[in-house]
Amino acid sequence: MNDDKIMMKHGAGGRAMRALIEELFVEGAPDGLPEGSVGLAAMDDGAAIPIGGGRFLVVTTDSHVISPIFFPGGDIGRLAVSGTINDLAMMGATSALALTCAVILEDGFPRAALERIRESMRVTCKEAAAPIVTGDTKVMGRGEIDGIVITTTGVAITERVVRDAGLHPGDRIVVTGTLGDHGLAVMSARHNLGIEGDLRSDVAPIMSLVAHVLSHHGDAVTALKDPTRGGLASALSEMAQKAGVGVTLDQNALPISEQVRGAAELLGIDPLVVANEGKAVMGVRAEDADAVVATLREHPLGRNAAVVGTVTTERPGKLVLDTGFGRRLVAEPEGEPLPRIC
Amino acid sequence: MNDDKIMMKHGAGGRAMRALIEELFVEGAPDGLPEGSVGLAAMDDGAAIPIGGGRFLVVTTDSHVISPIFFPGGDIGRLAVSGTINDLAMMGATSALALTCAVILEDGFPRAALERIRESMRVTCKEAAAPIVTGDTKVMGRGEIDGIVITTTGVAITERVVRDAGLHPGDRIVVTGTLGDHGLAVMSARHNLGIEGDLRSDVAPIMSLVAHVLSHHGDAVTALKDPTRGGLASALSEMAQKAGVGVTLDQNALPISEQVRGAAELLGIDPLVVANEGKAVMGVRAEDADAVVATLREHPLGRNAAVVGTVTTERPGKLVLDTGFGRRLVAEPEGEPLPRIC
Repeated sequence: MNDDKIMMKHGAGGRAMRALIEELFVEGAPDGLPEGSVGLAAMDDGAAIPIGGGRFLVVTTDSHVISPIFFPGGDIGRLAVSGTINDLAMMGATSALALTCAVILEDGFPRAALERIRESMRVTCKEAAAPIVTGDTKVMGRGEIDGIVITTTGVAITERVVRDAGLHPGDRIVVTGTLGDHGLAVMSARHNLGIEGDLRSDVAPIMSLVAHVLSHHGDAVTALKDPTRGGLASALSEMAQKAGVGVTLDQNALPISEQVRGAAELLGIDPLVVANEGKAVMGVRAEDADAVVATLREHPLGRNAAVVGTVTTERPGKLVLDTGFGRRLVAEPEGEPLPRIC
Repeated sequence: MNDDKIMMKHGAGGRAMRALIEELFVEGAPDGLPEGSVGLAAMDDGAAIPIGGGRFLVVTTDSHVISPIFFPGGDIGRLAVSGTINDLAMMGATSALALTCAVILEDGFPRAALERIRESMRVTCKEAAAPIVTGDTKVMGRGEIDGIVITTTGVAITERVVRDAGLHPGDRIVVTGTLGDHGLAVMSARHNLGIEGDLRSDVAPIMSLVAHVLSHHGDAVTALKDPTRGGLASALSEMAQKAGVGVTLDQNALPISEQVRGAAELLGIDPLVVANEGKAVMGVRAEDADAVVATLREHPLGRNAAVVGTVTTERPGKLVLDTGFGRRLVAEPEGEPLPRIC
């Protein structure tokens, strides 16, 4: 272990990254936020700050470094807008007030590619009913930056904040659709598996889906998180650790497409540890779980929603996979298996 | 001219960058913001959106790509916090609600350097009374990113928005201190002029200075902008163009330190076209200009404040320099003479 240098795993969304951020940024940093805030120490999908009148300002930020910038099912522009919209939604926001967009370009970057990305951002913003209100442009020299990096920040106002730490024993775990699509699509494209036609990233803004569920079953949803870097395994491990509960997943209930299964087998990668960019994981009160799934399935982005697990008091902080033949522990991934996945 | 590729000048803060952003992002992009908003099309230092109760949400974002990351008088961490705090202040905000921080690191980046930058951000946040509430960390491979890039976004709530477009004929132009320090300090360090001991960047969060002036002379301030990339020449050209007025600068009134003058002469660079990172340019009603300068000078960051020019109806959109012996037009810089200045 070389602890005096930053390594790829520190940016990969898993355990190594959380440890770095906790050590460097969170420890000993009193944030001075008002009572009732969700700040850096919570390490949630974003922050929430009370602004009076029972309202919270929600804010979230992400840098997008994906390679390749155009991939099956999307591109870096769609990813940047969706990623930020989804993080707002994961805090309980049901509409976005504004997005900001800071772009860093490599000297010589093709203008046509930038126009295509801009157009993709515009379309995705329209889908999400979210305006980009301000931005920044920097250019770095060749060899100083690879292509394009887009950092988006989102701001929303909400009356209810949903945390990622709210799981209770007995809750059901619901996912809003198939798992592993983004990660496997990008990996297949990078490895030229030749199956990209069938395998597409799920990248999409899912705030309208989350809003649809919260409007019908707001009280039933106990926790929300999007399974991006590190996939469902990473998101659920973090949720379980924060709530001090265990989670048992039913392997046979996990919605995974045939294409993802095929690519995962070829690449030797578990679909549970790779990024999704258009999905949410929810904790849902047991008695409402079926109704929540039915409501999710009414929405085009929730057609494959499913109950996939149960929150327990066993093995707090751990994720257990029930295969139908036995149970095994799912290790929290150190990080995403592939760098630059989002 | 190679119009099908992005070039360094497009990220340099001057005319070329504004043209690119206008063409690509602003034109034909209906932002759907409520009446009274300041959106992307205004190309101000940030955006402002009414949120009810006579209040506006102000938001601003910047990616920081400076090289070297440690420079005389500061580092990329202090720059990132100050740059964003100052952009909020330039919109009229007198306190910051929250900052976000997205960091991109090169694989192998020294941990000690990251800790030093983190500490610098912490100190600067404390100075600015602004908490970092959420963040993101990505790692890119060697040769994919040069060192570290930090994107900060700031959010504030204000009852009054000050635009950069508010200059009126007859207003005086006030600067809050010496000009050219940041740009010349970084250039001198990069060219190893060996005069860095005397020459330091002015990088600092100046929200408290701006708040001090606005609390005493709020109505007197007609326009606000920070002269970052492209320096005073770029900021004032933009302000003049937006307001459809001319600006005459009195060369002998411009506060420029001996060290900056010396370095500027050695490098053949005009201090008026390089970045400042702890200064503001203000339009001030003529009758209040002396009082505003006196108030600025009460504050440690405003000791060298001065009236440096007058807003006119002549040559709308242009900047004229009165040397004492004659008058000449100051061209709007195409961009900052040095890449990666901020």
